[in-house]
Amino acid sequence: MTRWVRHIRLEPGISVKELVEEMGKCGVFSAGRVAKAVEIYREMLRKKSTIFMGVGGAVIPGGLRHVLVKAIREGLVNVLVVTGANATHDLIEAFGGRHVQGNELADDVTLRSKKISRIYDVYVPQRAFEIFEEKIQPIFASVLQRDSRISSAELLRRIGLKLTDESSFLKAAAEKGVPVFCPAIADSILGLQAWLYSQEHEVTIDVLKDVKEIFELASEAKKPGAVLLGGGVPKNFIFQSMLLTPRSFDYAIQITMDRPEPGGLSGATLEEAKSWGKISKNAKTVTVIGDTTVILPIIVASVLENG
Amino acid sequence: MTRWVRHIRLEPGISVKELVEEMGKCGVFSAGRVAKAVEIYREMLRKKSTIFMGVGGAVIPGGLRHVLVKAIREGLVNVLVVTGANATHDLIEAFGGRHVQGNELADDVTLRSKKISRIYDVYVPQRAFEIFEEKIQPIFASVLQRDSRISSAELLRRIGLKLTDESSFLKAAAEKGVPVFCPAIADSILGLQAWLYSQEHEVTIDVLKDVKEIFELASEAKKPGAVLLGGGVPKNFIFQSMLLTPRSFDYAIQITMDRPEPGGLSGATLEEAKSWGKISKNAKTVTVIGDTTVILPIIVASVLENG
Amino acid sequence: MTRWVRHIRLEPGISVKELVEEMGKCGVFSAGRVAKAVEIYREMLRKKSTIFMGVGGAVIPGGLRHVLVKAIREGLVNVLVVTGANATHDLIEAFGGRHVQGNELADDVTLRSKKISRIYDVYVPQRAFEIFEEKIQPIFASVLQRDSRISSAELLRRIGLKLTDESSFLKAAAEKGVPVFCPAIADSILGLQAWLYSQEHEVTIDVLKDVKEIFELASEAKKPGAVLLGGGVPKNFIFQSMLLTPRSFDYAIQITMDRPEPGGLSGATLEEAKSWGKISKNAKTVTVIGDTTVILPIIVASVLENG
Amino acid sequence: MTRWVRHIRLEPGISVKELVEEMGKCGVFSAGRVAKAVEIYREMLRKKSTIFMGVGGAVIPGGLRHVLVKAIREGLVNVLVVTGANATHDLIEAFGGRHVQGNELADDVTLRSKKISRIYDVYVPQRAFEIFEEKIQPIFASVLQRDSRISSAELLRRIGLKLTDESSFLKAAAEKGVPVFCPAIADSILGLQAWLYSQEHEVTIDVLKDVKEIFELASEAKKPGAVLLGGGVPKNFIFQSMLLTPRSFDYAIQITMDRPEPGGLSGATLEEAKSWGKISKNAKTVTVIGDTTVILPIIVASVLENG
Repeated sequence: MTRWVRHIRLEPGISVKELVEEMGKCGVFSAGRVAKAVEIYREMLRKKSTIFMGVGGAVIPGGLRHVLVKAIREGLVNVLVVTGANATHDLIEAFGGRHVQGNELADDVTLRSKKISRIYDVYVPQRAFEIFEEKIQPIFASVLQRDSRISSAELLRRIGLKLTDESSFLKAAAEKGVPVFCPAIADSILGLQAWLYSQEHEVTIDVLKDVKEIFELASEAKKPGAVLLGGGVPKNFIFQSMLLTPRSFDYAIQITMDRPEPGGLSGATLEEAKSWGKISKNAKTVTVIGDTTVILPIIVASVLENG
Repeated sequence: MTRWVRHIRLEPGISVKELVEEMGKCGVFSAGRVAKAVEIYREMLRKKSTIFMGVGGAVIPGGLRHVLVKAIREGLVNVLVVTGANATHDLIEAFGGRHVQGNELADDVTLRSKKISRIYDVYVPQRAFEIFEEKIQPIFASVLQRDSRISSAELLRRIGLKLTDESSFLKAAAEKGVPVFCPAIADSILGLQAWLYSQEHEVTIDVLKDVKEIFELASEAKKPGAVLLGGGVPKNFIFQSMLLTPRSFDYAIQITMDRPEPGGLSGATLEEAKSWGKISKNAKTVTVIGDTTVILPIIVASVLENG
Repeated sequence: MTRWVRHIRLEPGISVKELVEEMGKCGVFSAGRVAKAVEIYREMLRKKSTIFMGVGGAVIPGGLRHVLVKAIREGLVNVLVVTGANATHDLIEAFGGRHVQGNELADDVTLRSKKISRIYDVYVPQRAFEIFEEKIQPIFASVLQRDSRISSAELLRRIGLKLTDESSFLKAAAEKGVPVFCPAIADSILGLQAWLYSQEHEVTIDVLKDVKEIFELASEAKKPGAVLLGGGVPKNFIFQSMLLTPRSFDYAIQITMDRPEPGGLSGATLEEAKSWGKISKNAKTVTVIGDTTVILPIIVASVLENG
Repeated sequence: MTRWVRHIRLEPGISVKELVEEMGKCGVFSAGRVAKAVEIYREMLRKKSTIFMGVGGAVIPGGLRHVLVKAIREGLVNVLVVTGANATHDLIEAFGGRHVQGNELADDVTLRSKKISRIYDVYVPQRAFEIFEEKIQPIFASVLQRDSRISSAELLRRIGLKLTDESSFLKAAAEKGVPVFCPAIADSILGLQAWLYSQEHEVTIDVLKDVKEIFELASEAKKPGAVLLGGGVPKNFIFQSMLLTPRSFDYAIQITMDRPEPGGLSGATLEEAKSWGKISKNAKTVTVIGDTTVILPIIVASVLENG
């Protein structure tokens, strides 16, 4: 049956879910892919997939903290792999720090003199990092008492359980039993703080333990699915988790602005992952080229509505 | 007053307008820019701006025909500048041709043998172009009887008035009195057909007349605003219209996936346009990096709801 | 035979040609594609292809004027299709105007007050446009005496023959008999000047004549090849020239920073063109993702060396 | 003094160094930036900068292994930070495995059945990973005898010293005393192998030790410079190394295809890094938008020639 391109129809008051339905009737270009991502996400939920979500890029500074919390609390994600920066910025807010709407054309030397650090058009007052240090060090002391050699996921779980901010995704994940891996934790302010702590205390973040823990999750996963926000370590670590198993992802949704031609994994197509056995040959997959801060809320809002 | 990044909150059933409000509270990255685009668009309508919309890229094959029609009929646009391809594909559908949801990884040699032309993941059966020829030639004969030397805008207006398809943006524009310029009309299948017609008939598409006509519109425009879907000739021609006037655009919204570093106009920042006097120094402007098929429906749906 | 990736080896004093040979041994990613572009270009010359070059983007302001002149004089190109901007900026320099190395982060309101127009990091003093007007108007008067209804290509040929600047690509092309099409000429400062001239004089730039002229060239072309610098009208007009013939391009080299996913022609793959019959099914093609100002000189320098 | 855009001039036999000089006279767009990168690199060498190079993306599969070796041996780099993948692929070749020129449009399910893994247009036979396992495990056993808790840099140094392949950058770095950090080592096949080893043996890769070791290098660095090939962990870890010191990078060269608007660090401008104090306010910096496989060889060849 020929699937015609049906043009998107808009009415005042249209809901996000209805807009995505229109995009699905259209079925092409990025609109069609957003609709396909929602369709795949719903099937993952229906089939009770184990959903691995990779969180690269500046998702937390970019305003998606509640979206992640919602996704965790509503069961849209079962395993998280995040950059150290996203863990750090979640904790900054959990400790009372805030991100500020800034200007990407600001003079950075002036910002420096005002003790403001810039992430594109987000400002982070340096004071937030000072508070971060004040608060994280006692937490390290508290959670690392019993044993000092732990995976990043176990560290983040323990930290998450210490938090009181209901808006923290680390807290939501810890409470919900969603593991949060951060295999490149040393590459972040959180990692720097861990190192400072280690100067005076015995502590080892054993990332090979993370390899073991995610491998076990991958081995037990049912109809595993991957939702990849940006690339970097989170994307690779999620895919890699399947390499030691005879299994592979049956679903994959990728949101990225990177492009495939330079050959880096961040921009790699999901097709390519099939050659590695990371994704199964009959997997349902879609890549949406776009900014996570626009695309993810559309997808999550649509998926929620169906729940 | 510090404008904090407030994280996007989603609830089941959230409307597009509400989502954009959340994006506005967030205020950063692309989410913030989508919200800003809506804010600027609303101000343009409130201030009764003359709104020039540039339609580059494959907007019509990509499923946005009704969105354009809606924008025209609801008064969201006063002047259009389009590529020849978008005019052609609107006419193809007006004549009964259709676009088909395809596959961007299809084998193009096979498609060729099946008489299917591909536009990324949209298929156009060659038959559509044959129908196009059958239908457009008599229309040329009909609309070029009186005088044969006309601007692209006048040609498209006359063609638009001949159409019966209510979903045609050319028809909607002609009926609503919204001029549609197509300064590179020769660079399209429509242009090829015009040339074929000219082999047997006297006809000149006088693009310098288009320069004159848009210059007059630019001269009379009130608080002029530009809404640029992609780049190319539509973007440049709209900006250029101000160069011969002492005026400049007071508002500009740009949706694009092109980047500025290679120096081409399509990816140029709106800031750059200020140095040329195309945009006024206090203009309200925003560039959203994203795919028009996702971003434009969000903006139009939000703007409609406020009307 | 397996073609291994052989790693690029560098020695002090290495020539551009030798570097491209190393890139060819490597054979992958963009390095491999640069080498393939050179290989295809050499084959086009060996087979005496008729080479159509599309010049989109800000190639002339970006410093490639001599490279174009060299390509024309050395027989690397037989037909040119250019944007109005590239013709305009060639003429600006031919008339004594100059482009200035600027700063892409400059304040554009300040530039405006200093009468400087910005093209990314290139500055154009407004004075250059005044000189342009002073000089082009008498040339129009001179070249449009006999007949006033001409194609863009004929207009540019006549203008080219009036120039004395040996560095002008319009002059080089006119002298060498290389037609220069500019189907969107109305969309440029050159077009604005033509319109100003037309206010007092009879003149019609008949772009349908351009359609006819390039169609004839396409019909007669031997083993036609396309070299596409950026996208826009030049790319489309070159491909379109084949649509009315039973033929298609046997070679195509594309240099671009645009991406295919948004569906616009500028970023479209060369594969896609096969479905339209613009490129033949066995054509040798390559797309290099990169900036023309870096990639084109490498290719031309390598091709020249072999001549 | 006005710096005019002087157009690039090419002659047959032109050397890479001469081409870059022409690009420097041009001074704009990406050509100008390549020339500026060479200028900055030369100044770093002249001022005896400590040069930190970040190696993200698929640099080794992409054919730049010898370029890295050359850069190490000729003193163009003093500290390396690499992805686990680049370390892995260097070792694959050191152990006799090879990368193959492939096709980015190949069917990945077919490749899977042929036991070929794809990295864009590079193929890696699975056999190469089997050999990798056979060879790396005894090396682990050999280098982890004395002490089993080491930084990634110390691990890679010891592995490098065991290699016999003169083309290995890990060997070259180890011999030359250039530390190679791999803070996300767990996120790679090398990390998977280390984990397998750890199942039977006591071994901890202590990435907090890497934090300490690079911090010490950053503290002692003279006029520190950063050369960033792609983004990811290597870029962030290099910048982060300055955060605990009162110092910052005085030079920075970035080659990337990522864009800044999505807010991730990989595409972030070097300006932004000034607000964090990662780069000093008067630092000399340049970002070249382009593919590392084309841009890096041009830069290194030019810099070598001056040595």
